[in-house]
Amino acid sequence: MTKDKYIGIDLGGTKILTAVADDNGEIIARVKLATETELGQERIKKNIFKSIYKVLEKTDIKIEKIKSIGIGSPGPLNVEKGIIYESANLPIKNMEIVDLIEKETGINTYLQNDANTAALGEKVFGVGKEADDLLYITISTGVGGGIIINGKIYYGHTGNAGEIGHMTVDPTGPKCGCGNYGCLESFSSGTAIKNMAKKAIENDESTLIKKLAKDQKLSAKLVAKAAAKGDQKALDIFAKAGYYLGIGIANLVNIFNPEMIILGGGVLKAKEYFLDRAKEEFKKRALKAPADIVKIKEAVLEDEIGVKGAIALAMQKVEG
Amino acid sequence: MTKDKYIGIDLGGTKILTAVADDNGEIIARVKLATETELGQERIKKNIFKSIYKVLEKTDIKIEKIKSIGIGSPGPLNVEKGIIYESANLPIKNMEIVDLIEKETGINTYLQNDANTAALGEKVFGVGKEADDLLYITISTGVGGGIIINGKIYYGHTGNAGEIGHMTVDPTGPKCGCGNYGCLESFSSGTAIKNMAKKAIENDESTLIKKLAKDQKLSAKLVAKAAAKGDQKALDIFAKAGYYLGIGIANLVNIFNPEMIILGGGVLKAKEYFLDRAKEEFKKRALKAPADIVKIKEAVLEDEIGVKGAIALAMQKVEG
Repeated sequence: MTKDKYIGIDLGGTKILTAVADDNGEIIARVKLATETELGQERIKKNIFKSIYKVLEKTDIKIEKIKSIGIGSPGPLNVEKGIIYESANLPIKNMEIVDLIEKETGINTYLQNDANTAALGEKVFGVGKEADDLLYITISTGVGGGIIINGKIYYGHTGNAGEIGHMTVDPTGPKCGCGNYGCLESFSSGTAIKNMAKKAIENDESTLIKKLAKDQKLSAKLVAKAAAKGDQKALDIFAKAGYYLGIGIANLVNIFNPEMIILGGGVLKAKEYFLDRAKEEFKKRALKAPADIVKIKEAVLEDEIGVKGAIALAMQKVEG
Repeated sequence: MTKDKYIGIDLGGTKILTAVADDNGEIIARVKLATETELGQERIKKNIFKSIYKVLEKTDIKIEKIKSIGIGSPGPLNVEKGIIYESANLPIKNMEIVDLIEKETGINTYLQNDANTAALGEKVFGVGKEADDLLYITISTGVGGGIIINGKIYYGHTGNAGEIGHMTVDPTGPKCGCGNYGCLESFSSGTAIKNMAKKAIENDESTLIKKLAKDQKLSAKLVAKAAAKGDQKALDIFAKAGYYLGIGIANLVNIFNPEMIILGGGVLKAKEYFLDRAKEEFKKRALKAPADIVKIKEAVLEDEIGVKGAIALAMQKVEG
């Protein structure tokens, strides 16, 4: 039997999205299960297995037809050994996920962190199709990144490359979750935007943010609502996030001279409040030659970026 | 006749260093000529040709034995087309150097910028032999960089990657030669150290720097002399350069997760005044996983780093 189908798994903190695809990477069926993190590591493993069987059940594809499986997961992880060391959003400790899946299914399995997988997804199936050297920046709870060089994920010597959110862009900046001060993530992530809003409330700087925060949880989304109503403090917060994002992009353009930079992540939904500011600062700071040629694009795969990236991972690994 | 010899050319602002090497990359003969930049582009070209013939004359190797030529040059340049666009240190404008050498000699010729060539030199013949993913940082008049990924130079989409000196490390920092503010180069280069000393003289902050500057040209070397005598301002200047260099290294380690970072360039002669400070800041700011595994080394090829890199370029291109 020719093995010509692939499975991609997007392991997230709240859901597991699993899909089966043909040899063009077209999704034939998909299934979404709750991760059930609250029930522990063993349950997460079982839910991953369940998602594989469920997605196959939805089609008439036999498991023997599956050539390989790709899985994207939050890190840090060991790509070569297939281990998820731990994760802020998953109660996981040294989970040998590749081994577990391979033993359960008998299918070759490949692991990458979620930002790298997303980058690969956009490269293979999304806006990055024509580009061989590209960077993907996700602006979400944190700021993450994936590096594609010569059409392949560059994951560094021990699988931890692409931590562009932890590039210092202002050494006297706020404390970041990583312990450092002034990381890009401490200025431009959803969490950073929320923190700036929290400070604004404490300092009584915006009545609208304060007012909205009475009924809703404080978040970047709430700040975007205030910005939409013209609240100056909310607009300033996004402008600051955009300013530092622009510095980060300029640094990456100078270092990588990439063909394309792809921006993704949930905070991009509020792009009208910070993206122009980011591009302006980037243009001001980057060297002319690489700035002139780089294309700054937005991710197009939306909620399926992770699972499509995982499919691409499965396919790419087989080809490489 | 088997073509099993290689020529490397290190084109610099004051000298052209050309060497012929065997198929192990061992230098058989070398020749150093003045670039004679003051006599213009045509003369520079003739001096490059002359250096090739002279180095062959020194041996009994016929030109027919040369398999390929590598040349390292200041940029910006077009690697694919083999053109040096222009250079701060050479009176060159759109010099089609690869074409010119190939027409003159009939030998395949490869061009890279000098920082990339130096990186390759250390990778192939120097301290980076065992590392496949490494970064080379040169701290000299400016701050430059070369990126080696999978044992090969990564030069980006249009040949301008590796401009790590123009990463913003403090957005409110001094104006850089590139027009931006707060580049790593504006804090940690020889020029930056000189500029800080100049300011110290203007502000009357160091009698020793001022005193030394009466007899000698102000330079990073002069500041190092003052530091050697315990001058506090000179020590502070180097500490500041080291602080920002540490931030730059931390950023690169977080982004690339490299196996090795190699530091080179003339300012490293004064390393006792800034290298520990740089390493301390790097350790404080980098993520633990990539910081723990990266080896921070010093370049070992010294004055021959450029020409050895050019030989490696010639050899690598043939193999690739």
